Parts: sequence; structure tokens; C-alpha cells
Amino acid sequence: MKGLMQDWPLLCHKIIDHAATYHGEREIVSRSVEGPMHRTNYRAIGNRARQVAKRLEKDGIAFGDRVATMAWNTWRHMEVWYGILGLGAVYHTLNPRLFPDQIAWIMNDAEDRLLFVDLTFLPVVEAVADKVASLEKVVVLTDAAHMPDTKIKNAVAYEEWVSEVDSDFAWRDFDETTAAGMCYTSGTTGDPKGVVYSHRSNVLHAMAAAQPDMLNLSSRDRMMPVVPFFHANGWSTAFVCPMVGSTMVLPGAGMDGESIYQILTEERVTMTAAVPTVWLMLLQHLEKVGGALPDLENVVIGGSACPRAITQAFQDKYGVNVIHAWGMTEMSPLGTLCSIKPDYAHLEGDDKLDLQAKQGHPPFTVEMKVTDDDNNALPWDGETFGRLKVRGPAISSSYYKGRGAEQFDEENWFDTGDVAHIDKHGYMEITDRAKDVIKSGGEWISSIELENLAVGHEDVAEAAVIGIAHPKWDERPLLVIVRKEGREPGKEDILGFMRDKIAKWWMPDDVAFVDEIPHTATGKIQKTVLRDQFKDFRFPDT
Amino acid sequence: MKGLMQDWPLLCHKIIDHAATYHGEREIVSRSVEGPMHRTNYRAIGNRARQVAKRLEKDGIAFGDRVATMAWNTWRHMEVWYGILGLGAVYHTLNPRLFPDQIAWIMNDAEDRLLFVDLTFLPVVEAVADKVASLEKVVVLTDAAHMPDTKIKNAVAYEEWVSEVDSDFAWRDFDETTAAGMCYTSGTTGDPKGVVYSHRSNVLHAMAAAQPDMLNLSSRDRMMPVVPFFHANGWSTAFVCPMVGSTMVLPGAGMDGESIYQILTEERVTMTAAVPTVWLMLLQHLEKVGGALPDLENVVIGGSACPRAITQAFQDKYGVNVIHAWGMTEMSPLGTLCSIKPDYAHLEGDDKLDLQAKQGHPPFTVEMKVTDDDNNALPWDGETFGRLKVRGPAISSSYYKGRGAEQFDEENWFDTGDVAHIDKHGYMEITDRAKDVIKSGGEWISSIELENLAVGHEDVAEAAVIGIAHPKWDERPLLVIVRKEGREPGKEDILGFMRDKIAKWWMPDDVAFVDEIPHTATGKIQKTVLRDQFKDFRFPDT
Ligand SMILES: Nc1ncnc2c1ncn2[C@@H]1O[C@H](COP(=O)(O)OP(=O)(O)OP(=O)(O)O)[C@@H](O)[C@H]1O
Ligand SMILES: Nc1ncnc2c1ncn2[C@@H]1O[C@H](COP(=O)(O)OP(=O)(O)OP(=O)(O)O)[C@@H](O)[C@H]1O
Ligand SMILES: [Mg+2]
Ligand SMILES: [Mg+2]
Repeated sequence: MKGLMQDWPLLCHKIIDHAATYHGEREIVSRSVEGPMHRTNYRAIGNRARQVAKRLEKDGIAFGDRVATMAWNTWRHMEVWYGILGLGAVYHTLNPRLFPDQIAWIMNDAEDRLLFVDLTFLPVVEAVADKVASLEKVVVLTDAAHMPDTKIKNAVAYEEWVSEVDSDFAWRDFDETTAAGMCYTSGTTGDPKGVVYSHRSNVLHAMAAAQPDMLNLSSRDRMMPVVPFFHANGWSTAFVCPMVGSTMVLPGAGMDGESIYQILTEERVTMTAAVPTVWLMLLQHLEKVGGALPDLENVVIGGSACPRAITQAFQDKYGVNVIHAWGMTEMSPLGTLCSIKPDYAHLEGDDKLDLQAKQGHPPFTVEMKVTDDDNNALPWDGETFGRLKVRGPAISSSYYKGRGAEQFDEENWFDTGDVAHIDKHGYMEITDRAKDVIKSGGEWISSIELENLAVGHEDVAEAAVIGIAHPKWDERPLLVIVRKEGREPGKEDILGFMRDKIAKWWMPDDVAFVDEIPHTATGKIQKTVLRDQFKDFRFPDT
Repeated sequence: MKGLMQDWPLLCHKIIDHAATYHGEREIVSRSVEGPMHRTNYRAIGNRARQVAKRLEKDGIAFGDRVATMAWNTWRHMEVWYGILGLGAVYHTLNPRLFPDQIAWIMNDAEDRLLFVDLTFLPVVEAVADKVASLEKVVVLTDAAHMPDTKIKNAVAYEEWVSEVDSDFAWRDFDETTAAGMCYTSGTTGDPKGVVYSHRSNVLHAMAAAQPDMLNLSSRDRMMPVVPFFHANGWSTAFVCPMVGSTMVLPGAGMDGESIYQILTEERVTMTAAVPTVWLMLLQHLEKVGGALPDLENVVIGGSACPRAITQAFQDKYGVNVIHAWGMTEMSPLGTLCSIKPDYAHLEGDDKLDLQAKQGHPPFTVEMKVTDDDNNALPWDGETFGRLKVRGPAISSSYYKGRGAEQFDEENWFDTGDVAHIDKHGYMEITDRAKDVIKSGGEWISSIELENLAVGHEDVAEAAVIGIAHPKWDERPLLVIVRKEGREPGKEDILGFMRDKIAKWWMPDDVAFVDEIPHTATGKIQKTVLRDQFKDFRFPDT
């Protein structure tokens, strides 16, 4: 027996229609790439998105074609995003911080036909455009007045391009499992892999993300996604905000502490989201200028483990609640958020910070388990760690072109590559990446836990732990340290600080001081590169 | 091009799994029908639901079979509900307050094979069981100790019945468009019509309903649905609460003001939901005993227009925020909620109450329009009223057995039968039912507006307005009044109070005083019956 309910496919462009209809006058405030602040609203964005779709069609872009964007978070990126979606084409967000060769490889892999690019990234595109055979046109997200000379063939200014048509365009209608967007993973553990979202997965993900125990976004929020739309599907903010009618504040290219502080304050932002490094910059700036954050209520921190010191500073010094989040490009991306359930409502001080160091619990639509290497489920005791596997309607079933097939099993469980434990209330904590975990005498040592501990030392700016081959134990941990400016801690200062705080056999066998730790384009420690740098390293007594 | 995301069907029983896993120890507190309070949690409910499914299967209940419930809101109702769902059978909630003949007709129409019934309603079932040929077994929701003698064939006590099996049962897997539940409309305007929910529609509806601008339910809420599970899909509380992990407080058979007050206070309920008549009873009780509501934060009021006096009393006297809601059995049921968007955040006092008298704005997944009789869309000016039509994934595409086909058009718009206007910010206000609107000289007069005005008079307990045939104007309004106990207002007292507050031609032509106004089983004014009572009425001068 079938239900007798309407066949109303979950299509992303219905989200912008909803926003335009019920939250039409809610503002989208952007720091434009050209400089000045720009203000528009959902009604206007909805209209302009239709215009974009109509104009794309005029360029021959059709259902299923990939259209790339290499752009900051601005209103134009929003218009373009929905224009592509409403035509049934596929948005493909490019990370401009990747190496040009990687970008060219990715664009060729996706066969992007058209590219929208911000002024900032024109040099990047100049370096790759010739290497992408499928690329027919480059639309520069600016107006004629700001259009620079460029050697790129078929480069046009966005405002002139789009103004050739009006906004009288009827969204296309199609199956909800149609591809909506593409995003490649950050490339932390190897080459980026292509993830293909569907309209259904984006919509369901946004519906789950809006809930009170997740992002808790309402029409009264003024949300600033600092996380770029090109990082892991923009943490879905381009969908959640219009779905619930939040005001959007878009920081454009201003990603330094001062710019973030300025826009947070001037636009009375109530909620924001980004990776830890962004917040470190903001906190340093606040410290320097003696700033305050009276309007900000919540900050979402994810992408890498959120250091305890950041959580503490936001909460204790600035009265801003921290929501630690874990996600993956393959999960659309939100997996868990660390909101506080009644089971832990009694926690205070250090105990509360301990809880908030966990990555949190998932919404309905995300299933999790931890298993040993033979796929046996492990207990949820908050200690026993294993491979974290997930399942849900907004989680990849495969990578583009069938890569990485070994991460997917017949029951749809996706192996995240993360190592984690889960406690009895369903709070998950990442202890490592499977590829980064240090295998010492048959047991596992968590590199993340050692790093978190080491950065607690007042003279340490950044820490990374990698496994170094050891004749007796297989692998033993090496601690790599970047010292804070002007500080000169010695090996024993740091090891002494760590001793007694962890099991003896977890203690690093040595400490190496470096000027810089390599990072990925999304700000994560690039252990593949670090391991390569230390490939000839041997421990003193081996 | 297809997305590469998992095929994870939206199935209702995944909701109870999520609750059992991530909110396992969250309580479900019920006033049992036998008397004492009963406490359980989501983990236990999840297990017992599997036991119910396994036991149903032993009785031969299979995929697609209809299984009825005639029960109060208690933990047992929850277990049974999910047990039915997880087997792929179809829950069918029966309204015990309907006439026995109506109940028998509905059960025959649905071909219910098994019925779960609360002790309270055994007499009702005794009156109908023989008339329902498909009915094979009646499970009385109690234990052997409380099992009464009954003449019903094949009646068994629930606890003994279910204990014959263990909870080792694997949920069935099937397409998300499979029928999940049935509920017949309240029968206000004619015979009840069968609505068939799918798993998909229930899940999507719950996801939309949880959002901050809708029910705003989190794991920290203690939610008490006073609205019975059998009224319009229980306003979906049986899905939303476990989805987000709210504590559930279930009032069982205690629906009077005193019982509601007691459980609200003792269980520190933070949010509750019911029709206006329930709240009238509570407010009267509070007044009598000088009560307070320190824990209650929000009360959802819907099913009929919420009188301004109720909103005012909750907010001003008791500090409880009122959320006016509009829904229909056909909409799963939530259509709009009147949360306050930034566009109206400046309103205070009477202006705010005016806004809250509106039924509100819809979540993403509900589309609305108002049209004239020729299906032309009318402007959203907050004045021009017309037929309210809706569209969405949790809205009926047809009634059971194809009844009422004229309410559905080719573009999937469902004609609600309500008359409404919508303002520029998307706030909808019901002005009447299409069948109740008074057609005077080619223009429409809203019966609801006249009723709302009349009950504002201090001597009026209840008011209903119906159209009476008029030789010159086609129809003119007659105001039917129930006086408050001990009060004796005359016709002119009431008309004088109304005059100047509405257009002159809207003024009722006469007032009739009665002892009682007829109500439906869900507490709505039954205008069909009222019109019948006044079918021989003529206005003095006609
Ligand atoms: N809050 C967090 N704490 C710890 N790790 C996190 C957190 N959030 C995200 N991560 C890490 O980021 C990963 C997802 O990142 P992303 O999808 O951007 O690509 P990547 O895994 O870094 O790159 P690639 O898959 O190409 O190697 C997670 O699998 C996890 O390892
Ligand atoms: N907040 C509200 N204000 C005014 N009317 C409301 C409100 N909420 C619900 N209603 C009315 O209730 C109707 C839905 O009720 P329900 O589905 O229980 O059946 P019914 O319409 O009363 O009965 P039937 O369809 O069988 O005649 C709506 O169409 C509307 O007329
Ligand atoms: Mg990865
Ligand atoms: Mg109806």
C-alpha cells in the first residue's frame, strides 16, 4: 500500500523560492571583492538567480553540465549557485588554494564547461585555463568598470553578461536524485576525491542542520559563514540560511582577524562558522585591540579538532558559546555537532570543556558506528576507538568515477578514514585519522591527542605528531613543534609538561623544532608532506 | 547526471532507532489509564516497539495491513505506533469521540484487522466491534490484572499478548512512499475523509516541524502533547519528539484543567500543544486556584482560531509564549506557525496580539497561495481573501478511495476549503471556511471574524455565526451566543459592543441565545448541525 501524499521532489532551488517568498526582505550583506559593502535581499537573489539560469542557457549550458565557481562568499556566489541549480546544471566549487596543477586536474576530471571567478583568483585561472579543454567561458564576478585585462580567452564581466537577459525563467523540474553539485575533498590524506551531491541530499542535509540541537538557525539569526562555500559544500550554509530565512553576512575576501572582527561587530552577527585557524586569528586580534563580541551568541568550529584554548577563550572571555562540529565533504558535510544534551547539562568548568572537545552527536539522518579492522562493532564506552563508519541520505555512496571503492561496503556504511570512540550518550570523539594513527607494539597512539596536549604548553604555537619507524615497536611518535614568536622552549620543557598527563608509553620519543608545519588548502596539517620531510629521521637510540 | 549519495529511505521507524541510540535515557512520562504515573525511556520504547512488531507478525499482520488504535497519549500508544510502522503495516488512529456508526464506517472503510484500545474506550468498541467484518482481534492496552470482562470476541490484554515474544526483530526495509498511517479528517464540514500518510511524508514533516521558527524542539525540551495522537496525526509529536530527543510528557486520559495543571507543574513541562478549548479549561482552573506556570515556555494552539483572550492571558498573566498554528489532517498536519520574524519584531501590545491572531507562516516544504474562484492568484496584501491552496511533500495528493477529487488540481495544489488572506511577509490569516463564509450581496463576510469579536464581550462564553437566507442579500449573518454563567446580556448589549469595530454591512442582522453550541469530536463548532437547527429561522423584517 502506498501513501497518498504529493510527489513534491526535494529540489534545491525551491529553497531560494521559499526564502524569496517568506523572507524576501531579509538581507544578504557582503563585503564585495571590489571593496565596499553590498546589501541585497532574498527576493533580489531569487530574481537574479533566475536571470543567471536564463543566461547560462543562452550560453548552451544544459541539464547535467558542470559549472565551476572559484569565489569568495558573496551575494554573487549565491546568485550563481542557485542559477546553476535551477537549470539542472551542477555547481562545482573549486578551492583556489590548491596547486594550479591540482586545480587543472580537478576541472578536467569534472569537465567544467564554464567558470565563475572572483577578481582575486584571476591569476590562478590564468595559470590553468589553457590546460582545461572543456572550459568554454570564464565569467569574472565583477562589473565592466572593474574588469581587468586578462589573457584568458572568452572572459567576460558578470554584470554585463547577466544583464543580457531578464529574470523571466521557470525553474526546471526533475528527479530529486539529480546531481546538484560537486566538491572535491580537501586532499589531506592524498589526492582530492570528487563528491557528487544530489538535490535530495542537499535539501535533507539542510533540514537536519537547521534543528535546535544542530545549527539552531532561525529567521532572527544573522549568520556569517566564514567557512568558504568551496570548503566541503560551504558547510551547507548557502542552503540552511535561506531555508530558515536567516540574514546572511558574507565576509568576501576579508579573512584576517581585523576584517572578521569589523564585520562581526558592524553587522551584529549572532552566529558564525569556520575552521580553528580563523578563530585563532580573530582571538589574537581581539586580544591586541581589547575587543568584545556583544552580539555574537554562537560560533561553530570544525574541519579540524577545536583546541580547548579556543573554546575557553570564546566562552570565558567573550561569552560566546562554542559548538564543535565534525564533518566531511562526503557528508554534505555535517556529521556531528557538540550541543549539550540533558545528560550532560550538569557539567561545568573543565568537565564541560572536556565534553566540548568531543565532536558531538549526529542529527537524525546520520547513523554512526565504530568497528575494528574486521568490521566488528565496538562498544560505546567513550574509550574503545576504532574505524568510524557512517550511513545516511546525505552521505556519499561512491566517489566520482568510482574511485576509493574500498571505503564503501555492501550495507552502505562509508568508512570515514577517521578513528574515533563514542560514549554511551552517543557523543563521538575523533582520536585520529586511520592513516595518521601511530601503531606502537600492536597498540594505537592518537596523534591528535598528543598534539592537543602539546599546544596547551604556553610556548607552543603549533604541534604535529607523526609515526617514525622503530625497530622494536614498529612505530613511535615524533613530536614536531613550531615555537611561539620570541619563545625558546627546549625538548625537555615540553616533554616535562606532557609527562603524567598521558600514559607513559604514549610519550613522544623525540621532539623536533621547525619554523613551519605544512598545511592543506583548507588549513589542516598535511601529514603526508610532514612524513616526507622526516622520512630519513631516526630516533637517537635506534 | 545523478548524485552519488546513499539511497537511505526516509522510514519512520528510523526515528525511534535514532532516539533509542542518541537519547536512550530521555524519559517518556505518562499518566497511565489505570491511574499511576508511568516512566520509561526511548531505549525501552524502541525495544518494546520491536516486540510489538514481532507479536503482530505472529498474529499474521503483514506489510500494508491496517492496524487501528483508539487510545490516549501514553507510552503504550507510542510502542504500538512504532511497532506497526516497523513492520510495514499501517497505523490507523481512531477518534473515540465520533458516533459509533461513524467509527464503524471508518473502520470498515480502512479494513482494520486489529485494534489496540484503551480501557476507557472499551464501551465504544463493544458497540462497534460486531459491525466491522475485517476486525480479527482487539488488544486492550492494559495488563491481566486490569483486564475487565468484555463481550468482545478475541479481546486480549496487551501486556500478556506482547510478552509472548521477545524484542529480537529486524525492522522491515521498504520504499519510503509506502503507506505509514491513516487518519480521517475531523468531519466538521461533512463526513470524515481518509488521509494516508507515507513514511516519507511523516519524516519530512517532522524534520520541518522541529525547526527553530516552527516547534523549535530540542533535546532539552519537556514536551507535552495534549492534542491526542488521534487528532490530525497527533500534530506529529510522536515523530518530532523522538527525532530531536525531547522528553515526552503524556497526559493519558486526564484532559481537564486540574489534571493538565498538575502534570504541567509536576513534570516541569516546557512546551505543550492543544486546541483552544483545552486551554480555556486550564486558564479557568489557574484563575480559580491562583496557579502559576514557571517552567512552561511555549504553548502551541491550533485546530481552531485561537481567541485573543487566550493568547493575552498566557503571555501577560503567566509569561508563556503563545504559538498559534494552523494545520489540517491532510497536511500531516502543520501548515503554518505564528513565530515572529524580524519583520515584525518591533510589535508590542495590541499590535503583537493582532499578529498572533494570524495563523502564521509555513516552513520550507509548504507552498501556499490564495485564489479567487477561477483559480487566479490574489495579491498578498493582508486583506484580499480567497481560497487557500497548498502544495508540499507532506500534503495529500488524494483521499482514500479517491473521494473528494475536486479538491486536487493537476498542478498538485490542494484546496484546503479554508478562506484566507496572506500579507507581504507571508503571514496567513484564516477568515473562514469556504462553506461557512456568508455571501451577502455578492461580497463575503467572515464568520470567524464576527465570532472572535463577539467573544471579546465579557458576558459571552461562546459565539457562532451562520448565514441565513435573505430575500434581498442572498445571505445575512445570524449571531448565535452562549452566555457566561450568571450573565444576562441582551441583543443590543452585544451588537452595541460590536458596532464601530467592523464595517456596517458586516453587522449581524440578529442575535440568538442558546444553551449550547454543537461541537465536533475535535472540539470545533459544528456549523452543519447549527445551520440545521436554525433552518427555519427568518430575520424579523423578512
Ligand atoms: N571537528 C573535527 N575534529 C577533528 N577532525 C575533523 C573535524 N572536522 C573535520 N575533521 C577532519 O576533516 C575530515 C574531512 O575533511 P575534508 O572533507 O575537508 O577533507 P580531508 O579528509 O581533509 O581530505 P581528503 O579526504 O582528501 O584526505 C574528517 O574526516 C576529519 O578527519
Ligand atoms: N489555527 C486555526 N485557525 C483557524 N482554523 C483552524 C486552525 N487550525 C485548524 N483550523 C481549521 O481546521 C481545519 C483542519 O481540521 P481537521 O483536519 O481536523 O478536520 P476538519 O477540516 O475540521 O474536518 P473535515 O475536513 O472533515 O470537515 C482547517 O482546514 C481549518 O479550517
Ligand atoms: Mg577525507
Ligand atoms: Mg477539513
